[in-house]
This record gives sequence, structure tokens and C-alpha cells, in this order.
Amino acid sequence: MAKTLREALAVPSGKVDLASYDSRAKTGFDGSKKDSPALMSAAGERLGELQERLFAGGRNETDTRSVLLILQGMDTSGKGGIVERAVGLVDPQGVRITSFKKPSSDELTHDFLWRIDKALPEPGMIGIFDRSQYEDVLIGRVRKLVDDKELERRYGAINDFEAAYVEGGGTIIKCFLHINADDQKRRLAARLDDPAKHWKYSPGDLDERAFWDEYQAAYAIALERCSTNAAPWFLIPSGRKWYRNWAVAQLLLEHLESLSLEWPAATFNVEAEKKRLLSL
Amino acid sequence: MAKTLREALAVPSGKVDLASYDSRAKTGFDGSKKDSPALMSAAGERLGELQERLFAGGRNETDTRSVLLILQGMDTSGKGGIVERAVGLVDPQGVRITSFKKPSSDELTHDFLWRIDKALPEPGMIGIFDRSQYEDVLIGRVRKLVDDKELERRYGAINDFEAAYVEGGGTIIKCFLHINADDQKRRLAARLDDPAKHWKYSPGDLDERAFWDEYQAAYAIALERCSTNAAPWFLIPSGRKWYRNWAVAQLLLEHLESLSLEWPAATFNVEAEKKRLLSL
Repeated sequence: MAKTLREALAVPSGKVDLASYDSRAKTGFDGSKKDSPALMSAAGERLGELQERLFAGGRNETDTRSVLLILQGMDTSGKGGIVERAVGLVDPQGVRITSFKKPSSDELTHDFLWRIDKALPEPGMIGIFDRSQYEDVLIGRVRKLVDDKELERRYGAINDFEAAYVEGGGTIIKCFLHINADDQKRRLAARLDDPAKHWKYSPGDLDERAFWDEYQAAYAIALERCSTNAAPWFLIPSGRKWYRNWAVAQLLLEHLESLSLEWPAATFNVEAEKKRLLSL
Repeated sequence: MAKTLREALAVPSGKVDLASYDSRAKTGFDGSKKDSPALMSAAGERLGELQERLFAGGRNETDTRSVLLILQGMDTSGKGGIVERAVGLVDPQGVRITSFKKPSSDELTHDFLWRIDKALPEPGMIGIFDRSQYEDVLIGRVRKLVDDKELERRYGAINDFEAAYVEGGGTIIKCFLHINADDQKRRLAARLDDPAKHWKYSPGDLDERAFWDEYQAAYAIALERCSTNAAPWFLIPSGRKWYRNWAVAQLLLEHLESLSLEWPAATFNVEAEKKRLLSL
């Protein structure tokens, strides 16, 4: 029997060796690039309906379900592209996007999860994190922003935090957008070559690229330690943009399907309202 | 010479008689319903590019431009439909949607513009108001929520507030979605007939419908008193959903075109960065 994409892309437990993953794989995609627009469009139709059911349910105080899509990856891996192409398939009213930048001085006076907690989606909503709590064990580790003891504490704190969100009705989809150093070099060069893309580039991008190996090691540790039953990590081969966008849309779809979302029952007397409408 | 849609739909100064407007008009639309998907798709392409330029500019501290789309209309006039179909054409990362409900007790302790001011879009963003400051002179007037003196004060306060936003680099597009009482009856009946739409219905909708004439009068006054040079009102015939969606997308497009948005210049030495990239 064919595996679901969430089974195929879930990061197996144990040691993670990112170099062993092909960034240009098309895991679970049956066809070629030219088939992707039609498949995205079909996924969009279904996603739209399920998102509306989730949203409708959220109006009901007893339904606390929400979905959180976490996007992590090196610069140019496609976090923004996924928001535009995959998240853009659903009604923007049902989506709340949070882009986590360098913490503000106010945010730094609190625990690292403080700003994350405030951004969790309300019932009925799909939350999107463009970067997330994981930055605090990625750049935090690579750039030695905190001491070892605090760094160690954070993996467990993240697992507890995510488990509590899931316990309260949340579904988490954590996507690591996997590219290799050549993919990034090609994409940064393309940004530098196109004046319409200069605004996306910052010299700081190269400062971080100089730590490529350290980031890969930090990602591997985060994937090993924080891929839990409540909130597994998915590794998305992201060397091909069209595949990456399809894979995330498909993962979102599979997770929404698994919620068995139904239209909520009317909380009023439908026949009485029909009569009342006729008289007005 | 053909008028732009913003010229054709702008509410003329002077007395406003809503009954004289045909809710099923197709002002400025050259063709029939079957042409609308292709036109929406073309508008979407161009909107996407202009929105990205606006967003890119907002990264630059000297560019304070933003756009605010205000949606007002009776229940079922299509505020939500426009967000899904017209706003949904652009990258959700560049859009901030605020849905104004009945004010909270906290909000009520402040001036009515307090919560509005907090929701204004940041530079580079397109803000969407699903209902707005106008509720405070609509339901506020119809349901006599404030005394006459406060009500009178509000029209001027709104004009001053909007002028200040425009002065600071904002562009406001105020859309009144015009339907007639029969359009609403038909749409409410359709909601009651379809279990997938019951969640959108509330018996309170009929309570407000009972005040139809009073709301029309309150809208007419708001359009008369708050259609200013800085922020004119547009009347969108909304009896046909496809026309309404196209018209708002087209208005948004015309306003973005008028901003002459350019890609911001690089703030770094492009050639030096190209060399640095080669070495990494």
C-alpha cells in the first residue's frame, strides 16, 4: 500500500545525517514538474474546504482545534515561497502568519518561548511560523548566544511546550526545508543577478553561510532531539521549488484530512429562522 | 476616453440616494460573467508583482507607504468573499486582515478610533478592515449607542484620522458593498438552506435586517460626510458576486499602479557580494 506523504517524509528516530538526503528528491510525487500546477490546484480546492471547516468549528467554544505549520531552513530554502504558493491556496482570513526575526530587547527580557506562545493560533486558525522557537537552538548554538546549560534546557522545554499545545487541541507540522550548499549558492547568485531580488538579499546572509557546516550539525541535533510523537519533524527535499511547495501543501492537506472536520451543527432553530426571514 | 474604475465608482459629492443605485450593475466591466475568471487571474498576476514591490519598499526606512482597504456593507454583501477571492490573489505575507467585531469592554474604555489606529498597516503592507471605524456611525446611529453630540463628532474625527494616515504615506480604499433588501433575503435564505453555511448565520442577522431602512440612511450619511479628497468612498454594486470581487481587485490594482512602485535599490555593493559568494 502506498505510504502517505507524512509517513514518507517523517524524520526517523535516531541519528540524523543530513548529507545522506538528496535535496532534489521527489519523494511521493508521482509524475514530473509539468503535472504540479494541476495537482496544486486540486490540493487547493480541498484545502480550501477543510480550512473553512476548521474555521467554522473554531466559532464553537467547545472546538479548540487549530493547526500550526512551522517552517525552518537555511536562507533561500523557501520559507517565503511556501507561504506564497502553498499557504496562499487557502482563505487568508483563516491564516495567521508570524515571521520571527532577531528578538527585540523586550523579547530578550523574557524566556525564549514567551513570544512563541503569544503567536500560537487561536481555535479554528492555521498558524504559520516563518522561523520559530528552533532559531533559539540553531543560531543560538552556532553563534553561542547562550551558555551550554541553557542550550541543553531548551530542547526539553520545546518538547514540553509543543506537547502542551497538542494536548490542548493543536496539530503541529514541523517542516525542515532541506537544501545543500550548492543549492544555496545558486539561489544567492540569482538574487544578486536580479535587481528585483536585491531587497531579499543582505550581506549578513553570507556571514551565516560561512557557518554552513555548524548549522547543518545544529539542525541534525534539533531533528534528533525534538522529533516527538506529538510533533514529529518532516524533512522536505527543497532543491526543486515546485516539489517543495507541493509537498508542504500535501502535508497540510493530510493533516487536515486526519482531523475529520465536519460542519458544525446549527446553534439555532433553522425552520423558525426561515419563517422569520420570510416575514422581514 | 474610458474612465478608470476608481473614477466610475467614486461616490459623487452631495446628497447620496442609495435606492438609485442598481446593485446588479456591471460598471466598467467589459464582458460577461464567463470572462471574469481570466480577468481575475490577469489582475492577480499584476497585483502580486505590485504588492511585492510595496512590501520590498517597506523594508526601507524612508518608504512609509502602505495601503488600507476598508470593506463595509450589510450582512451577506460579501466582505468575507472579497477577502477570499480578491485579497487572496496576493501573497498572504504582505497582507494584514483585521475583523472588527463588537468592541470589547477594554476597547470601550477608549475612544472609538483607538482600536482602529492599532490595526493600521505597517509600511509595505496592505491592511484589510472587515468592518471599520464606520461601524461607530452605522450601528452606533441606528441602535443609538451614543448620544447625538458624540455621533456628530465622529464624522469629523474619522475624516481627520484618515487624512493623517494618508499624510503619513497611506492610501485608503473605502468600499461600500451595495446590495438591496432582496439580495440579502435571497442570500440569507441560501445560508439557511445549506448546512455547510449554518455557521455563518446568526439570529442576530435578522434582528439587524429589521432595521434595513435605518441602516441605508446611516450609510448614506456616512458616504456624504466622509467621502473626502484624501479618502473617497467607492460604491461597489454587489448583487453579482463575481462582479463585486473583480471590481475590488481592480480598484486595488488601480491604486497600486498609481503609486509608481519601483524595486528598491540595493543597500550593499552588489559586485563585492558576488565575489564574496564565489569564495564561500
